[in-house]
Amino acid sequence: MNRWLIENATMITMDPAKPVLEGWLSVDGSKIAAMGAGSAPEEEKRQAGGTVNGDGLLFMPGLINTHGHAAMSLLRGLADDLKLQEWLENHMWPMEAKFTGDDVYWGTSLAAAEMILSGTTTFVDMYDHMDRVAEVVEQSGMRASLTRGVIGLCPPDVQTAKLNEAISFARDWHGKADGRIQTMMSPHAPYTCPPDYIERIVAAAHELGLPLHTHMSETAAEVAQNLKDYGVRPVEHLDRLGLFSRPSLVAHAVHLNDEEIAILAERGVAVSHNPVSNLKLASGVARVPELLRAGVAVSLGTDSAASNNNLDLFEEIRLAALLHKGVSGDPTAVPAAEALRMGTVYGAKSIGLDGVTGMLKPGMRADLIALDIRKPHFVPATDYMSHLVYSASGADVAHVWVDGKQLLKNRELLTLDAEKIRFEAQRAFGRLKG
Amino acid sequence: MNRWLIENATMITMDPAKPVLEGWLSVDGSKIAAMGAGSAPEEEKRQAGGTVNGDGLLFMPGLINTHGHAAMSLLRGLADDLKLQEWLENHMWPMEAKFTGDDVYWGTSLAAAEMILSGTTTFVDMYDHMDRVAEVVEQSGMRASLTRGVIGLCPPDVQTAKLNEAISFARDWHGKADGRIQTMMSPHAPYTCPPDYIERIVAAAHELGLPLHTHMSETAAEVAQNLKDYGVRPVEHLDRLGLFSRPSLVAHAVHLNDEEIAILAERGVAVSHNPVSNLKLASGVARVPELLRAGVAVSLGTDSAASNNNLDLFEEIRLAALLHKGVSGDPTAVPAAEALRMGTVYGAKSIGLDGVTGMLKPGMRADLIALDIRKPHFVPATDYMSHLVYSASGADVAHVWVDGKQLLKNRELLTLDAEKIRFEAQRAFGRLKG
Repeated sequence: MNRWLIENATMITMDPAKPVLEGWLSVDGSKIAAMGAGSAPEEEKRQAGGTVNGDGLLFMPGLINTHGHAAMSLLRGLADDLKLQEWLENHMWPMEAKFTGDDVYWGTSLAAAEMILSGTTTFVDMYDHMDRVAEVVEQSGMRASLTRGVIGLCPPDVQTAKLNEAISFARDWHGKADGRIQTMMSPHAPYTCPPDYIERIVAAAHELGLPLHTHMSETAAEVAQNLKDYGVRPVEHLDRLGLFSRPSLVAHAVHLNDEEIAILAERGVAVSHNPVSNLKLASGVARVPELLRAGVAVSLGTDSAASNNNLDLFEEIRLAALLHKGVSGDPTAVPAAEALRMGTVYGAKSIGLDGVTGMLKPGMRADLIALDIRKPHFVPATDYMSHLVYSASGADVAHVWVDGKQLLKNRELLTLDAEKIRFEAQRAFGRLKG
Repeated sequence: MNRWLIENATMITMDPAKPVLEGWLSVDGSKIAAMGAGSAPEEEKRQAGGTVNGDGLLFMPGLINTHGHAAMSLLRGLADDLKLQEWLENHMWPMEAKFTGDDVYWGTSLAAAEMILSGTTTFVDMYDHMDRVAEVVEQSGMRASLTRGVIGLCPPDVQTAKLNEAISFARDWHGKADGRIQTMMSPHAPYTCPPDYIERIVAAAHELGLPLHTHMSETAAEVAQNLKDYGVRPVEHLDRLGLFSRPSLVAHAVHLNDEEIAILAERGVAVSHNPVSNLKLASGVARVPELLRAGVAVSLGTDSAASNNNLDLFEEIRLAALLHKGVSGDPTAVPAAEALRMGTVYGAKSIGLDGVTGMLKPGMRADLIALDIRKPHFVPATDYMSHLVYSASGADVAHVWVDGKQLLKNRELLTLDAEKIRFEAQRAFGRLKG
């Protein structure tokens, strides 16, 4: 059915012109064709090859996870409650060093299954063996912004090889999977890439016309080290290296001073806020209310399942709304609607997809999810925007569509084989561990 | 079936002698009869009137929610993101003033449905019209510690009437519902009860041989006011009034100094930590690592759905594990096992039910839950204690038993009529709002 219709729908559109709509929505191919209040016009009904009855469901745009390392789902629960260096050096890195392309494929498949089951339709992924990640995006039907994250703490020939690999991946896969894949260039972090290497990566991004993604100012120690090594804090350092001369997205940005917030706002740098990961690794609490006030597009990321340990973006949305109230002492900080924007429209904006996804609006891609609201925690029907932020979880998601194609139907994955993924992911972990 | 058996079970027992057990568990009437590793002995199989196959399930003790106002679920999503006084005075209190016994009944039924569906088997409730709350406990099959919270900002005759009502309720219902109901006495808070009224409530608790429950030091403003009004901070104030001379449970305890923590530890006062509510109302972050280090029994509460806005205790468990790491800068603060103890054994201890519930152990009540672990976010099977804390949610709970009786089966409520509750709760809200 190329054109189809949703009727009797309650929709949280995220469109400021009409945030809540009780009515109908039609999809034509990969796009939202039309929407309206009340009953669908006869013309819409005639054209529809199929109809979804929206009764008992709440529709909203698919969620956008703007920072993660999907394949690391294979390491979920391997090590927790440890000092960062011990966690990295004794647990994460030794395992990751053994990752093959197949491990990345099954780890990313596991993550994709979990993301679809919890309402995420678009994700950003920075990892290695990215062609295998792209394969999962193609198969799963999800939308993604992918990037080979490069660490430059290695001899020049290895640096060059990694950079070339990142460039090839970014060039070959940009626009693939019917346009659902886009790519970025990524120095892993200012503390893992020498300045001249970052400049080469930035130059490549200019040449390819692609955005940049990096980790930045995740810990206080990292900021102190940057000051010691380069005489400036990370924001100024990256700004000098030209990173912000391309559209860019920085993950974490926990430790920022006022001047750095002003620079990020001025350069139009987007920030991926990862509240669960930042708490779990004891990195601290990002200055989200100040960033939002300065006009920075702050979106949400889960980071990997090794430091979270799930990929339910509803949890990040809720924590973004809760945490900054408690820490600032201001109960009006990050209100529900703003937290939802962080998980949708600001996410789209962060990766150049504003006007494409993150909103229910005619002409935009039909990336939408439907939550089952016949559950006690959605009662009474006071304010569904509040319920989505403060009461819902990914487990409430019943249906998911991307580009108008259904990926989840009554919590059944239509494009991925959940049973096989579970089996292969467990087997891959056993091999890595063994 | 009076005696029945669970086989092929992975169990997180919370018993320090044997935290994880792969094996079998038998229930006889309301109690856990026996447990063991591997296959059940033939004798157990012969005696069993029925068998549950634990394959694909993870068993653990039912969760214990040690602070809440269940009936306020009727006000979920009514008002959020507001200054505390505005929220209370313009939204909560005007609605609550209209609550009838029927409203309390349906609001509490809604809460009970949500709690069972998210794995809570025991809850503490402080509210009004408590006989109607007790009715829900009887019908639902849950275990509860109930108390009529009294506010003393009223003429002496009204104070006396309220106290008598609280005493009658506490005396009449203690030990009812086959022993699943116990009662407490509750001055609402030091700032809503004059000192002499608190003393009268404490005297009544002594006479009845019951524990005490109250709100304490939730906000910085409340502590400042206590100092102004009585010359001491709330802990010393309540200690002087004798509140801690009975077993007592204080909710929130966000703003404590070192001396107050020492007093609470010395008097054996239990603390109900409500992290979501404390963040949402911008009250602050309780000093949980310090309280635990001092030996205080710190359990977890959701508070009401009006300031949360759900009753999923897994979320409080996860936030307890995450929040204190991020705020203290110590990634080893409140490790997974400790967060789980807060939601189970420490909860039981807080309300005098240690040895009764909160642990899977022969001789203890058969209050247990089973989570469906055939979901991507439980893969790989690295460490189920970690997965329960950092990855699970209440929606993973498939089965719930209290006193050996099944309340939830494959997410279907067996003792409550979910459809009717949804309808009546919505209708009650409409009438209150109208």
